[in-house]
Amino acid sequence: MDVAAALAGYGDRIRVALCDHLRPREPRRHLYDPAAEYAWRGGRMLRPSLCIAAARCFGASIEEAIHAAAGIELLHNAFLVHDDVEDESDERRGRPTLHAMHGIGLAVNAGDGLLLLGLEALLANRARLGPSLTLALLEDACRMARETVEGQALDLGWRRDNALSLQDDDYLRMVLKKTCWYTTIFPLRTGVLIGTRDPSRLDRMLSFGFFLGAAFQIRDDLLNLEGDPRRYGKEIAGDLWEGKRTLMLVHFLQRTTAAERARLRAFLDAPRAERSPDDVAWLRERMDTYGSLEHARAVAHALAGAAQHEFEREFRTVPDGPDKALLAAMPAWVLSRE
Amino acid sequence: MDVAAALAGYGDRIRVALCDHLRPREPRRHLYDPAAEYAWRGGRMLRPSLCIAAARCFGASIEEAIHAAAGIELLHNAFLVHDDVEDESDERRGRPTLHAMHGIGLAVNAGDGLLLLGLEALLANRARLGPSLTLALLEDACRMARETVEGQALDLGWRRDNALSLQDDDYLRMVLKKTCWYTTIFPLRTGVLIGTRDPSRLDRMLSFGFFLGAAFQIRDDLLNLEGDPRRYGKEIAGDLWEGKRTLMLVHFLQRTTAAERARLRAFLDAPRAERSPDDVAWLRERMDTYGSLEHARAVAHALAGAAQHEFEREFRTVPDGPDKALLAAMPAWVLSRE
Repeated sequence: MDVAAALAGYGDRIRVALCDHLRPREPRRHLYDPAAEYAWRGGRMLRPSLCIAAARCFGASIEEAIHAAAGIELLHNAFLVHDDVEDESDERRGRPTLHAMHGIGLAVNAGDGLLLLGLEALLANRARLGPSLTLALLEDACRMARETVEGQALDLGWRRDNALSLQDDDYLRMVLKKTCWYTTIFPLRTGVLIGTRDPSRLDRMLSFGFFLGAAFQIRDDLLNLEGDPRRYGKEIAGDLWEGKRTLMLVHFLQRTTAAERARLRAFLDAPRAERSPDDVAWLRERMDTYGSLEHARAVAHALAGAAQHEFEREFRTVPDGPDKALLAAMPAWVLSRE
Repeated sequence: MDVAAALAGYGDRIRVALCDHLRPREPRRHLYDPAAEYAWRGGRMLRPSLCIAAARCFGASIEEAIHAAAGIELLHNAFLVHDDVEDESDERRGRPTLHAMHGIGLAVNAGDGLLLLGLEALLANRARLGPSLTLALLEDACRMARETVEGQALDLGWRRDNALSLQDDDYLRMVLKKTCWYTTIFPLRTGVLIGTRDPSRLDRMLSFGFFLGAAFQIRDDLLNLEGDPRRYGKEIAGDLWEGKRTLMLVHFLQRTTAAERARLRAFLDAPRAERSPDDVAWLRERMDTYGSLEHARAVAHALAGAAQHEFEREFRTVPDGPDKALLAAMPAWVLSRE
């Protein structure tokens, strides 16, 4: 199964749909052009492709799933814009973040605009899917977005309070909310809903989506530390500079000596601008010494295995085909992607 | 007609409904408590009261309108939080703004949470109003929110570009989008929709809502310059410090001498922190000299008169009663409120 080729194929279809939602219109310069910025920087279109593949597994056509897929990508872009503001990130997909280009005010407003464009794309399902199914999609989108906001609040709160007593399960709970709901769970649920037209099937995607999404996030955090700077779109080691509570940091936190803990506390307490390259290098070296990256790789591997198991259970009755093969290949793919 | 008493009566009902939507839940400290902050600072509940009054005028009960009313107030709070970030405002309802208390990241995220709580309140109409009417409400809410975001982009863009060639109709177009849609047009449309169950009636509220909302906004901007600091919840003359394009500033802009224009341009070009009290006092004095406040009062008066005219036309067939009397009293009330 060539995952990259399958994603590229659906990605092209989704980009065509996005062209309509993100078409230039007034006010262009201070709203709709900035709102379209991240979408046209590329991206794998993973989330909307999961939606289309799941919909097709359960008997729907691409056309029936395309509005939902576009909505998912637009909501993803909305979250990226606000997350970049909230996390004070400098780079996104190899270029400056939206607030770095246009200021915080305009970026927050453009993120709001993207959220509304995403909801409007979901509302556009009404003509083909009918009012009841469209409302079920909207209700699930609100649930998903609120999980995301709650996950972001956990993450921001840990940084704000300089939380140092975190365990792996705190991290996984945060990732379930902040990453999995919008990256895997909601796209899969939406696809299943469009395919089966049966809202009672939704919760069967929770476990597959959680395991897959958590493995995805841990791999993403590992790439942030050891990825190829030319292929990775964000600042390498940016997570260390930001004090992001990754599984690697949580692992190190649980093992620090008193002296290491004091140094780490001071580092995390300082504003980002006052953190030094020496401290970042020290933190990275300590993680290597304690095997924090190896631990994270092992957890990601276990999660991907659990995802594979859940996939086989939930898609047992789905006939074989390219979409089932794509979803079946996802757990291995999230571990190997660059 | 005692407008204050009528608003207080509906306000109590709406606060009860908000207690459920804004109930304490986890994560409390970094999300739901900050999200509830503005709502419990008081406020007249003008927007949801307009919705309930319009719904009752067209035959609905309070119970049928209460979810929509709560949703309107929650969306209003969401806009306030993000607007305060975008406008770099310091005070809201007599206390520090949310981002001044908790930082920009947490405030942006809490604003997102409020937007979702507002949408969920609108979705809660499904049980009583059915899927079609609920979807019509959602579609109109997205339209309204996108008008608001576009209006905010115009306003931010003018400040960003230091726009000095604005006319009264530029101002009114911005206010139509940024203020009227969510303050008057959408609450009225929602009430009419719930009362009549007829989406074709919606556009009949556009003119009444626009005239009433624009008069409201101009009065609000006048109060910012000459209100009683103990009764007005925001920093007095905060709009001058922020370089906000009010009708008074637009009026002065059209009349400046070359020297005044140069001084004004430099003042507006400077970051807020570098603007001096002397410049603010000078700007206020120039507005007085040119009669900018008088001009704004005259425009607000004319808009309120037009609103009265539109009200009489659109509510002609509505039987007399306290809700019709409340809406009839709104144009005069927006001009006289402190």
